[in-house]
Amino acid sequence: QPSRLDWDRWVMMGLIGFTVGFLGFLLHQIIEIISEYKWEKAEEFIKDGDIAVAYIWVLGISLLLVIVGSVLVVYFRPSAGGSGMPELIGFLNGTVVRHIFNVKTFVVKFLSCACAVASGLPVGPEGPMIHMGGLIGAGLSQFRSGTLGFALPFFQRFRNSEDRRNFIQAGAGAGVASAFGAPVGGLLFAMEEVSSFWNMKLTWQTFFCCMIATFTTDLFNSAFTSFQYKGSFGLFRAEKYILFQVRNEIPVNILAFIPTVVLGVLGGLLGGLFTFCNLKIVRGRRAILAKLSSDWKRKVVRVSELCLIITLTVTASVFLPAAFSCSPFTCYSSQNDIVSSPECLSPENHTIHTENDVSLYTCPPGVITRFSNNSVTTNKTFNQVATLMFVTGEEAIHHLFSRETHNEFSYGPLFAVLCIYFFLACWTAGSAISSGLVVPMVLIGALYGRIIGLSMVSMFGVMDKSVNEYWAWMDPGAFALIGAASFFGGVSRLTMSLTVIMMEMTNDVQFLLPIMVSIMVAKWVGDFVTHPLYHALLELKCIPFLDSEPVIVHEGNKPVNLELHMARDVMAAPPSVISTRESVANLAHLLLDTPHGGFPVVHSSREGQEKTFYGMITRIELSVILFHPDLFETEENPTPEDPEVTLLDYQQTTIHKLYNTDEIEDLLTKFCDDPVYDQQFVNLQPYVNQSALSVRDNFSLHRTYIIFRTLGLRHLTVVDETNKVVGIITRKDLMGFHLEEALAAILLEQQEQNN
Amino acid sequence: QPSRLDWDRWVMMGLIGFTVGFLGFLLHQIIEIISEYKWEKAEEFIKDGDIAVAYIWVLGISLLLVIVGSVLVVYFRPSAGGSGMPELIGFLNGTVVRHIFNVKTFVVKFLSCACAVASGLPVGPEGPMIHMGGLIGAGLSQFRSGTLGFALPFFQRFRNSEDRRNFIQAGAGAGVASAFGAPVGGLLFAMEEVSSFWNMKLTWQTFFCCMIATFTTDLFNSAFTSFQYKGSFGLFRAEKYILFQVRNEIPVNILAFIPTVVLGVLGGLLGGLFTFCNLKIVRGRRAILAKLSSDWKRKVVRVSELCLIITLTVTASVFLPAAFSCSPFTCYSSQNDIVSSPECLSPENHTIHTENDVSLYTCPPGVITRFSNNSVTTNKTFNQVATLMFVTGEEAIHHLFSRETHNEFSYGPLFAVLCIYFFLACWTAGSAISSGLVVPMVLIGALYGRIIGLSMVSMFGVMDKSVNEYWAWMDPGAFALIGAASFFGGVSRLTMSLTVIMMEMTNDVQFLLPIMVSIMVAKWVGDFVTHPLYHALLELKCIPFLDSEPVIVHEGNKPVNLELHMARDVMAAPPSVISTRESVANLAHLLLDTPHGGFPVVHSSREGQEKTFYGMITRIELSVILFHPDLFETEENPTPEDPEVTLLDYQQTTIHKLYNTDEIEDLLTKFCDDPVYDQQFVNLQPYVNQSALSVRDNFSLHRTYIIFRTLGLRHLTVVDETNKVVGIITRKDLMGFHLEEALAAILLEQQEQNN
Repeated sequence: QPSRLDWDRWVMMGLIGFTVGFLGFLLHQIIEIISEYKWEKAEEFIKDGDIAVAYIWVLGISLLLVIVGSVLVVYFRPSAGGSGMPELIGFLNGTVVRHIFNVKTFVVKFLSCACAVASGLPVGPEGPMIHMGGLIGAGLSQFRSGTLGFALPFFQRFRNSEDRRNFIQAGAGAGVASAFGAPVGGLLFAMEEVSSFWNMKLTWQTFFCCMIATFTTDLFNSAFTSFQYKGSFGLFRAEKYILFQVRNEIPVNILAFIPTVVLGVLGGLLGGLFTFCNLKIVRGRRAILAKLSSDWKRKVVRVSELCLIITLTVTASVFLPAAFSCSPFTCYSSQNDIVSSPECLSPENHTIHTENDVSLYTCPPGVITRFSNNSVTTNKTFNQVATLMFVTGEEAIHHLFSRETHNEFSYGPLFAVLCIYFFLACWTAGSAISSGLVVPMVLIGALYGRIIGLSMVSMFGVMDKSVNEYWAWMDPGAFALIGAASFFGGVSRLTMSLTVIMMEMTNDVQFLLPIMVSIMVAKWVGDFVTHPLYHALLELKCIPFLDSEPVIVHEGNKPVNLELHMARDVMAAPPSVISTRESVANLAHLLLDTPHGGFPVVHSSREGQEKTFYGMITRIELSVILFHPDLFETEENPTPEDPEVTLLDYQQTTIHKLYNTDEIEDLLTKFCDDPVYDQQFVNLQPYVNQSALSVRDNFSLHRTYIIFRTLGLRHLTVVDETNKVVGIITRKDLMGFHLEEALAAILLEQQEQNN
Repeated sequence: QPSRLDWDRWVMMGLIGFTVGFLGFLLHQIIEIISEYKWEKAEEFIKDGDIAVAYIWVLGISLLLVIVGSVLVVYFRPSAGGSGMPELIGFLNGTVVRHIFNVKTFVVKFLSCACAVASGLPVGPEGPMIHMGGLIGAGLSQFRSGTLGFALPFFQRFRNSEDRRNFIQAGAGAGVASAFGAPVGGLLFAMEEVSSFWNMKLTWQTFFCCMIATFTTDLFNSAFTSFQYKGSFGLFRAEKYILFQVRNEIPVNILAFIPTVVLGVLGGLLGGLFTFCNLKIVRGRRAILAKLSSDWKRKVVRVSELCLIITLTVTASVFLPAAFSCSPFTCYSSQNDIVSSPECLSPENHTIHTENDVSLYTCPPGVITRFSNNSVTTNKTFNQVATLMFVTGEEAIHHLFSRETHNEFSYGPLFAVLCIYFFLACWTAGSAISSGLVVPMVLIGALYGRIIGLSMVSMFGVMDKSVNEYWAWMDPGAFALIGAASFFGGVSRLTMSLTVIMMEMTNDVQFLLPIMVSIMVAKWVGDFVTHPLYHALLELKCIPFLDSEPVIVHEGNKPVNLELHMARDVMAAPPSVISTRESVANLAHLLLDTPHGGFPVVHSSREGQEKTFYGMITRIELSVILFHPDLFETEENPTPEDPEVTLLDYQQTTIHKLYNTDEIEDLLTKFCDDPVYDQQFVNLQPYVNQSALSVRDNFSLHRTYIIFRTLGLRHLTVVDETNKVVGIITRKDLMGFHLEEALAAILLEQQEQNN
């Protein structure tokens, strides 16, 4: 039997993929056009010897961009700041986060992100791209907008929270796919990091969405450079669409795993340090802001902070290179035979060379001298630090990843740039501008990876393919790649998605194994040091997050076996229950007095019998029902108890947000105060979700957690042996700290009993 | 907080990965040593003009291998035949399949697979590698063997069905990783195709297992060729560890997606045809075997069938090339300028060339003539069909995937090989030898992909990078790759894992998008035509399989909305229930008279109260309890109802198989017949699984299915509103055909009521 094809779902996935892909293209081109213009002009000024003019030029443009980017965030939509990843993860775990899927957030995020990246701050566009992808998924699939106030009559069947969640996941995956040119990586990222509940049947559709996103971005990027049409539309050149393409493939050797493990350990430690420092800075910033008395002062401080960061960044970019001397173009035609000749510029003639597109900065361009015996020499020089700092982050990564350029960078410049960049990136993350962390993470990792690679060159000399294939793995560029993977892994603790993203980003399948090993070691080491950054931020932002597996410790470090505890140990009791036929006044009281999102409904099938669990009803459904006085009935005149007769349309009750909260509150207060409503009843039976799950009170707590998490529940009713409601378990009851408290009390009691 | 590290689990995963990897190395080397020896000798004979001798030589060796391989399967372990994939998938879906994780199966499978592949049958080693991987996962993790009769005191905590299942999944993934050199692909394969219940937390451990497997295989293969040490241990050369390495990367163009879609459609149709023919052949074979009266006749027929296939295969390999004339070595130095020169042999000088390692067969080797004006020419020739058939399947794929060899193969040979190979592969799959389908699928796909590519060369002429980069995508080798992906996709309907496997197998990230598109189109088209092959085989082998999403149709093609039905519509009622205190005779009767695997246990907490659902107990647990007469008690002397006091060890009841079935049956019969046991009781309370899930009878059927499938249940008790047991739902009740029958009856009733 052919399976259902779900045309509309595929169309929607394609639409989301296309939109995210096009957005990625726009963002890429905007950033490119601004930064190219800025750095080209600056280089001209420096060539003319006007360093001061260059400084003022770069600082002016960058300051302007940063101010625009941060003012947008601070004054119009504070929730658009940062990468948006923790909020997205929290939302998909089941928490409602305000404003994250809003048109205004989207516009602010896009503009702010473009400004931030183009300004030269140590940030990348990837995190915001993921959030914007999710936003597009949430917005497009609903075909309506609360902010803009319209609802089109298309795809109405996707207007439920499950489908919406799926489209958000797909959109986030498409964001990754577009930003990194990694469709498989995007899919895995959505699966591993973004989503909490993954439906395997959606994998293929999400993959389609990611593929369309990558395709769209590549297609438009293939024809345009800085928005100028360059011909050859549709020709996917590897150097254009593979982010950090690796050109010279070298065979991996088993010995390469020794420095790889070292890099993994370093990645775990430095990643932990980065997370630790970043959290300290975020907490410190929060403490300072809390001390400020008025709102406008806080806003000004937030914008000024970014101005300070960008000033430091620009100052370092422009003046730091001057502290280092010029380096000659070196190349090796064979081992221990250094020649300086223009042939060095073409990699065909010499395996070990210096790249063509290094920055000269203030170094003399030099001339080529040709001797009579057909040999040539040059005194061309370049500046190493400028090659890393006087460019965009992506270009710097390209330089660091370049292979068979063993001596292009030496220790001093690498260390200097590493320290400055680590500090600036750590400070910027979490400030009031929309920014991602991927480019900084990759750059930092590539820097220390290159240092490790260089130290091996110092120890064993330059080895390359022409000298000895067996030792060709000792290439600083290759270790820059492994280092980047390790630091990325140490901060984010991503595993398989990161491996695939690194592979797709560099087009180098051969280094897959070392990349995997470094990521794995980094994760192991990192897990000893700190939480993953995003999860730490979730905690910091007070977003309740349910891990896939509960890890509860008691009295120091003793893990508690949840199998030995029962659902009743953590449930909230007694719960607020509703009868299937309830007075309006009671309902209004309940809604006003409790903040619960859902209520168990009880019912007795026979007169006189005790009321047993019947189903669940949500707060929103109750509110909608109370908004329809025609549903009210008096005690004497009950409607027939036929669940088929529903007076409210299904569509009306399946909204996921109430817009008129004030109005509702007024109404509820009226219902509570007016004694008339004590005699008015509502028959809730048709609106109750009878397929709500319940568990017995002696159910194992571990299994309760697994069920709650696997099925993506929000409330779980606990019943006794005769199906009477005795409690309710919500997300909050299963959070780590709550479990620990509840179980600590019980364990204490048990101990006392034993004594 | 650092998370638990689970050292033992990681160690076990590493151990499984290493073992599977080493096994892959052994299998690879054995096959290589045999086939190299066979084909080299044969080529020598042919070079001497002795075609008849070559034929006898190849046929002799191949026949011998096939007889060994099939006799092992037919006489020692019939369940080791085929790829083992359907059985593995069925087992992980929750069905018990006999003998699939047995030491004998493993040995037979390994030897039979090595014989089958080395003999030259149109089969590959990948499917059996996956099954053997799962087998190693199942066997190693338990550290005991029923067949060999030992149980080591290590890793005892993994002796439960959940952990075992996880290790089997990891082992199967490692099998893929080792066979294709694709660790990410292995992980995704385990996730997408093999497993039914996937625990996200295991992803990372499975990835580790796959990585170790790939690493081990690559490491040993790096140093050995046909078991001879060749030095450079640990140097991973791409040409050795990447299965079908693509050397000349060409940029993808948007226009390439037009033939890609065509290939996808072809892949879907031909894949469907392949599945259809294969099922017809399997059914036909079964019908013929059923007609045979005695067992030994059946066995002889099964072995002879394979002898017939190999005779046909060898005859085609040896004599078919003779039907085609010799082709000259051609190469293009520029468009429309055909030159025949020895430089053609070196790809550096001419982009469009003929490979060096083509088969000469009986063609004259030719000489190189050197003219005075420094130009050279050659009359060297080769045989196209021999290049594809007089080699192993993997080498043939290498030739087909070779790029910038536009005219190496022409239509005639490609069509001839395609037809013969399609027919033979279709026949062999399902015969009594251990064999996989991947190599045949890739080869068939590559053949028609190359035909489509060649037709474009015929239409537009040879285009290559030196002529016009924009049109360089028109390369028959590239379309062979896309065709292979499409046919693989059309038969297996794998999606993301296949994409990643194709990418890792060829080391070409650039063709990722076309590969994805062709696989997607092939899946869409294929889903209209037939089931995926493995799922069709599951049905044929009567293995009940629960899809991730129920698709039920009624009266032709109308899909039934399961949301409108209830759990009670499909449950088995009345169920066999047990009280917490039950007489031994009753229990024995129940075990003898019903085949159920689990029973709901009921209990009343107060005297006189109706008995409500208390938990589940499995058949195995009951049998174990009845084996311990010391647990029996008389009516007058009940043990205290304290669930903490257990007389049986937990380990004893958590076995997953009863070995002494005859003994148990005797015992049960005794319990039934002897009236003494009517007065003997057992208190089951301590052994009941109280965390067994139950649902209400009016629970939505759709949601019931989802819960059953998501949580990997085997039984689900249905209770009424007062928690009384009213029915039970098992795997069988949720199978498609059963659902259809049950719902058809209900729908019919509703219609009658309406009239």
